[in-house]
Amino acid sequence: MDEKHLTPRAEDYNQWYLDVIAAADMAQHSPVKGCMVIKPYGYAIWERIQAILDARFKETGVENAYFPLFIPQSLLTREADHVEGFAPEVAVVTHAGGEKLEEPLVIRPTSETIMYETFKDWIHSYRDLPLLINQWANVVRWEKRTRLFLRTTEFLWQEGHTVHATHEQADERARMMLEVYRDFAENVMAIPVIPGQKSESEKFAGAHRTYCLEAMMQDGRALQFATSHDLGQNFAKAFDVKFTDEQNVEQFAWQTSWGLSTRTIGGLIMAHSDDKGLIVPPRLAPIQVVVVPLWFKDEQRAEVLSQAEKIAALLKTVGVRVKIDQKEGRPGEKFYEWEKKGVPLRLELGPKDLLNEKVVVARRDSGEKEDVSFSNLAIEIPKRLEEIQGALFARAKAYRDQRSVRVDTWDAFKMAIENGKFVLAHWCGEAEVEAKIKEETNATIRCLPFEAPEEKGVCVLSGKPSQRRVVFARAY
Amino acid sequence: MDEKHLTPRAEDYNQWYLDVIAAADMAQHSPVKGCMVIKPYGYAIWERIQAILDARFKETGVENAYFPLFIPQSLLTREADHVEGFAPEVAVVTHAGGEKLEEPLVIRPTSETIMYETFKDWIHSYRDLPLLINQWANVVRWEKRTRLFLRTTEFLWQEGHTVHATHEQADERARMMLEVYRDFAENVMAIPVIPGQKSESEKFAGAHRTYCLEAMMQDGRALQFATSHDLGQNFAKAFDVKFTDEQNVEQFAWQTSWGLSTRTIGGLIMAHSDDKGLIVPPRLAPIQVVVVPLWFKDEQRAEVLSQAEKIAALLKTVGVRVKIDQKEGRPGEKFYEWEKKGVPLRLELGPKDLLNEKVVVARRDSGEKEDVSFSNLAIEIPKRLEEIQGALFARAKAYRDQRSVRVDTWDAFKMAIENGKFVLAHWCGEAEVEAKIKEETNATIRCLPFEAPEEKGVCVLSGKPSQRRVVFARAY
Repeated sequence: MDEKHLTPRAEDYNQWYLDVIAAADMAQHSPVKGCMVIKPYGYAIWERIQAILDARFKETGVENAYFPLFIPQSLLTREADHVEGFAPEVAVVTHAGGEKLEEPLVIRPTSETIMYETFKDWIHSYRDLPLLINQWANVVRWEKRTRLFLRTTEFLWQEGHTVHATHEQADERARMMLEVYRDFAENVMAIPVIPGQKSESEKFAGAHRTYCLEAMMQDGRALQFATSHDLGQNFAKAFDVKFTDEQNVEQFAWQTSWGLSTRTIGGLIMAHSDDKGLIVPPRLAPIQVVVVPLWFKDEQRAEVLSQAEKIAALLKTVGVRVKIDQKEGRPGEKFYEWEKKGVPLRLELGPKDLLNEKVVVARRDSGEKEDVSFSNLAIEIPKRLEEIQGALFARAKAYRDQRSVRVDTWDAFKMAIENGKFVLAHWCGEAEVEAKIKEETNATIRCLPFEAPEEKGVCVLSGKPSQRRVVFARAY
Repeated sequence: MDEKHLTPRAEDYNQWYLDVIAAADMAQHSPVKGCMVIKPYGYAIWERIQAILDARFKETGVENAYFPLFIPQSLLTREADHVEGFAPEVAVVTHAGGEKLEEPLVIRPTSETIMYETFKDWIHSYRDLPLLINQWANVVRWEKRTRLFLRTTEFLWQEGHTVHATHEQADERARMMLEVYRDFAENVMAIPVIPGQKSESEKFAGAHRTYCLEAMMQDGRALQFATSHDLGQNFAKAFDVKFTDEQNVEQFAWQTSWGLSTRTIGGLIMAHSDDKGLIVPPRLAPIQVVVVPLWFKDEQRAEVLSQAEKIAALLKTVGVRVKIDQKEGRPGEKFYEWEKKGVPLRLELGPKDLLNEKVVVARRDSGEKEDVSFSNLAIEIPKRLEEIQGALFARAKAYRDQRSVRVDTWDAFKMAIENGKFVLAHWCGEAEVEAKIKEETNATIRCLPFEAPEEKGVCVLSGKPSQRRVVFARAY
């Protein structure tokens, strides 16, 4: 990007994505290949995500804990599907404290194995269940091709891990946490998502079932927003996680795991931003309102700043996250900076506004400007923020709906995928057919949507019978 | 420990320490040697530490960010003293993604090197300064002998890193952050600390000066509570962190770093706890008050529970962190559990109390019990919590003062160290003498206290002149 303009989305979508991150000063590549530095503004968004989700997890009875970064290699290999899925992308510590280690240590790509080896000592009877644990942590997966936020070698996430006495309770918990994520995606991040189940080929390595939320980015590609796994007894059997039930009979436990990562910040960028830069939904935004004081003569400065502080204090009392831009610099440059950072509302306050007892309120999403009198700010600003929240969700949803198509022929399928659509199509349920579709179109089954109605049809490739449509798309 | 009793401190101090952790259910050893699992109650204490410190850092203008876990080996070696200090204890990733890495990656033992390699791109002119960054992260130092919380291979901490235009500003910031820690130690954790400066031999590898807080544990040993380093230009020169000043002249910047870790939880345990288990100061406690409802006949249950909920709701409105113990089980067992976890106040509420409209309030620190009427709870409970806060600090301070001695002869010095005292003694300032003292007594200079008055004397070992006393002790 040049100093003033981002690469337009229409011209080069990938470059636009990187330009938004640079313009909003969110992250950058690090001296370590594939790892990123999350800069303060990007990290402030992550802190908001953490604070909101953490409170919601705790409301459902979940407690936080912390498990080691390292996993002995022998533990990782205990569950067959799990090791097959993760072994190719782990980083391995072979030397430490100046010596070669007897057993290499893997850096956690996810913590099922190290946690469940410990859980087995915590659980004795049905009275110890459910066990509801979450961890905020860094994990490492060695990726060949990386992209800021979307795919980095190290990333930050939370991983929830629960243990239950029955399969029904475990599955209920897996779906409950998916619903926590869905509500957060749609009502905080303003990102519409499709809740559903992964196909067998796409499920988590070691899971019985994987539930997921799929969101559409502005290039029509899918982004997996979060996943929640019903692990069945797969890990319980591999790690000997047992309990004695009410009849005093020993049983293997039923487990879940569920996670959301810094990847969602990539989703945030690609769901809402425009050619001017980032757009952050008000409920998520670390800064919801920026007040830019303007003056033309030095003697106006003190009075304008003093009024800006009064306004900021007033807005804080009604729960608005507000910042005054007190930096030196031209107003145009300041407007531009906060626009790039996607702050939902900008309040311009100059000497004339003081006389008229009003501010100019500029919306980041629509660009609209209006005058709001000082006496109406405490009512109007929170209202305007909620309007923006709703408008962003509506816009993202309309966009997704417009780029989603129902398709019944193979030619139409290929063309729709080529055009970057979410394609609702029939699929016979066979993994080989799914693989062939992926091979030919680069599209994957994003999910078997929970809400897909029963509808008889035939598979778009194999022609075999199918009961409901699934969602195909190219994905990040 | 047996099921009901911890090993008494007087009998086996180290075993008592481990018993407190087990009894309060705070942490345990993990399947990875030297690493610990922080269990929910231990982690809840860490979350309180994080929340309070994080807010205080932000009040001073610090912003959070996140830097990679990995440091290319070549970066770590850039600052000579730094690599000498840390190279022997790093863990090294040599293989990843199924391949041998071209350059091994060190797992961060601390992040000066990876951060400053990035900072240099963030800083151009004096207008970019000060840069005030903090990171909450895990770090790894390969330790031969580990102990839960006090010394673990992986630990959690925050590391602040700031960059300034002058040495004066950097030093001021280093002292400001030490003061943030001191206030937190004394007024939140109720641990009296001695602020001071490390000797040259004890300072951080790469620092110009290290400031520290030293606390006394109940066995008389010292625990370093937190450190704050004036890094001078050492790292700026190694990492080329430069800025152009107001005269447009290029200058090396001045830096600080400062950190506090999960180690402080070890300090918490050893500062306050007793032979019954943990004691948590009220301002830190995740649970300040536990309400234990009692009933003898099933028909009393609903009424008692309902009143317990009213009391909990009332206490929440006055900002008290309160929990109702609704578990099945005998009252005695419940009392014992919360005693072990160190919850400051226990409220016992039975059918008779309902009639008399009062609860029994039991203090964890003193064991005292008193009746408090329902109508006085909102006033009395917060007051009682503040009393406990003060009493714990006073007790720890009295203990420290009583175990601190001024000593002027070598024989008295050796005896005092042997008896587990903080020893205020004269030292000539020579590193060889300091090393000899350590060799002969296992005592180190904990700090050169800021508040040591000028006082002519002679070094306790060398007999050479000295201007002020320093603090010697054996340390964790």
